[in-house]
Amino acid sequence: MMQTPCGLVTLLTDFGLGDPFVGVMKGVLFQADPALRVIDLTHGIGPGAVSEGAFWLERSYRHFPHGTVHVGVVDPGVGSERAAVVVSAERHYFVGPDNGLLAEVTLHAPHAEVRSIELARHGLLNISSTFHGRDVFAVIAGRLAARKLSFGDVGPLVHLRVPSPIPGVISEADGFVGNVLTVDHFGNLLTSLRASEVLPATDAPFRLQIAGQMLRSVRTFADALPGELVALVGSFDTIEVVVRDGSAAQRLAPVPGANVKLFLS
Amino acid sequence: MMQTPCGLVTLLTDFGLGDPFVGVMKGVLFQADPALRVIDLTHGIGPGAVSEGAFWLERSYRHFPHGTVHVGVVDPGVGSERAAVVVSAERHYFVGPDNGLLAEVTLHAPHAEVRSIELARHGLLNISSTFHGRDVFAVIAGRLAARKLSFGDVGPLVHLRVPSPIPGVISEADGFVGNVLTVDHFGNLLTSLRASEVLPATDAPFRLQIAGQMLRSVRTFADALPGELVALVGSFDTIEVVVRDGSAAQRLAPVPGANVKLFLS
Amino acid sequence: MMQTPCGLVTLLTDFGLGDPFVGVMKGVLFQADPALRVIDLTHGIGPGAVSEGAFWLERSYRHFPHGTVHVGVVDPGVGSERAAVVVSAERHYFVGPDNGLLAEVTLHAPHAEVRSIELARHGLLNISSTFHGRDVFAVIAGRLAARKLSFGDVGPLVHLRVPSPIPGVISEADGFVGNVLTVDHFGNLLTSLRASEVLPATDAPFRLQIAGQMLRSVRTFADALPGELVALVGSFDTIEVVVRDGSAAQRLAPVPGANVKLFLS
Repeated sequence: MMQTPCGLVTLLTDFGLGDPFVGVMKGVLFQADPALRVIDLTHGIGPGAVSEGAFWLERSYRHFPHGTVHVGVVDPGVGSERAAVVVSAERHYFVGPDNGLLAEVTLHAPHAEVRSIELARHGLLNISSTFHGRDVFAVIAGRLAARKLSFGDVGPLVHLRVPSPIPGVISEADGFVGNVLTVDHFGNLLTSLRASEVLPATDAPFRLQIAGQMLRSVRTFADALPGELVALVGSFDTIEVVVRDGSAAQRLAPVPGANVKLFLS
Repeated sequence: MMQTPCGLVTLLTDFGLGDPFVGVMKGVLFQADPALRVIDLTHGIGPGAVSEGAFWLERSYRHFPHGTVHVGVVDPGVGSERAAVVVSAERHYFVGPDNGLLAEVTLHAPHAEVRSIELARHGLLNISSTFHGRDVFAVIAGRLAARKLSFGDVGPLVHLRVPSPIPGVISEADGFVGNVLTVDHFGNLLTSLRASEVLPATDAPFRLQIAGQMLRSVRTFADALPGELVALVGSFDTIEVVVRDGSAAQRLAPVPGANVKLFLS
Repeated sequence: MMQTPCGLVTLLTDFGLGDPFVGVMKGVLFQADPALRVIDLTHGIGPGAVSEGAFWLERSYRHFPHGTVHVGVVDPGVGSERAAVVVSAERHYFVGPDNGLLAEVTLHAPHAEVRSIELARHGLLNISSTFHGRDVFAVIAGRLAARKLSFGDVGPLVHLRVPSPIPGVISEADGFVGNVLTVDHFGNLLTSLRASEVLPATDAPFRLQIAGQMLRSVRTFADALPGELVALVGSFDTIEVVVRDGSAAQRLAPVPGANVKLFLS
């Protein structure tokens, strides 16, 4: 029994907001049904940064109602032979390219199903070669969210060909090794370490090694000294490196994917 | 008799739009009621810039229908002991931290009422220590806007503990002294001087002293010479310093809070 | 027979998103009817860049349902004597200043009609001199979209006084000369050359001369070599200059309006 779409659509892209690309995707969605509600998850993913998009999509979708359709477009291979797919997972839907962007969701959703979008079946014959966000993904997402297309009619069941681009956490005898995945607006470094997987309890103390430094953990910003570089459990179940009233990214200037190691104190 | 919420929610934060923080707040709002309409007031408040947020919130809310719920999250003290509150003022509602962000609204609204959000009463027991915008404010705002929670049931009546962070205007024998509060997208400097309080009429001429210079006033940009630094009454009842076809911020590079003095001509 | 408004409103401005300017325009729109749906086309038009706004408005509006009301505010002459108008064209409506911003739409819409907004007729007597986006255009657009004002009642039929700011394409014996109009988020250069007007078929090969270089055309990014500077038909019927996995703007640093010449191969 599939989840009935609830009329909500979210958009996550690397388009930025400086051009009308996101706006025209919404125009296409509203052509399916003017009563849809469309939410910008973010359009600030780095150009072509599939792993950053995969991370945020997987960490964000549970905050939306069941039946939400999530469109992800970080698609440097647009126009090539990469497949277009719809995923059904955890009572949510996901529409995007099979290039790893949706694979972090399926990796953590045991009963996910994937269907390939057959362009001809949906009349998508005269499409641009550079903007499938508008010409494929928004069309299919709009019909799905408006209940004019059922998941079963999208196309045949397939498996994703491209795995998640996020490196797996390595469990060692004395801790866990992960990676810095992205930097947020405040300069906090978000890592691949999930608190729920590496800590015995959310408030368990730990130490985090990064760039040759060993950081203590705090519960919240107010528990750190002003200017102190510390680690904490962020609001997306993620171990983060932060500076109270400052920017960890400015302090550490981490290379993308930099290693971190967590030790239980 | 309280104002009935109209189903509109606005968001003002310092989150920027590069991450999904704003998006997931909307997910939480739509969990209260998918029929809500959510409007971004702005997410470009400087990180932790409570006074800038307080200014824009107070100057903007009257442009929305009565019964709108305005959520403000500029919250560098998240996770500390600062209170979370809901304000009812001028037939609008405001949800946010008691750190000054909502205090400019109450300062100018004679009959404002403030209630403290009691977390336990609303089942908000298992919340993050770093993202109350999502875990507290969006939850309460959504229920309030969806009429699932009445203002009276938010919590006990209290007084705001933290006053407005905006310095008061000083009335002197020959004019008024105020401060530069923020710089807008076009490089215009917005001051704390309210035209309706310091001018006998909106179109009364005046002179403005800033950074050692004395500027004349004009009615509109077209009345200035190209490149001329002038003062005018902006569209938010605010005395502004502007350059026609240019940026006053680039010309003056004002320090935040820089003094200005207005003389009636 | 005019198109019935469908309740959708789009906004295109040069306001950016750092201030509440766009947000309060939406507040005014929702005062006309809280059931409107409002879409950001883009707010990233360069400050005062009327030609860039005119380009994107004309290339974008067809992706929205018939009856959409499009508001355009790139208005460096706000407060001067320039007229405020509503255009009806191709079953869409457009609201904005008569400064060229809407003229690219009318240029390509043979049956466009233009009406001047008579401020007094609509009670718009006490308006700011610097923010007509809020005080005039959003008011009129809201009433129009909410079917509280018919196009015929906006004001008298007029002709636009200011023509399109986009230079016309020049047809020469051996090709077509156009101009670079804007640079998108990915560093692609968008030109004034419309594929449908200069190519015998969308997939016809061509060469493009720019800044002393002659570029080959490709069908899609994947057909170019990594790092190769090429031309292609973009998703808005536009000849673009692009670099696979890179930024053409960084490679060429084109002056605004730079000439390009297309040769059929």
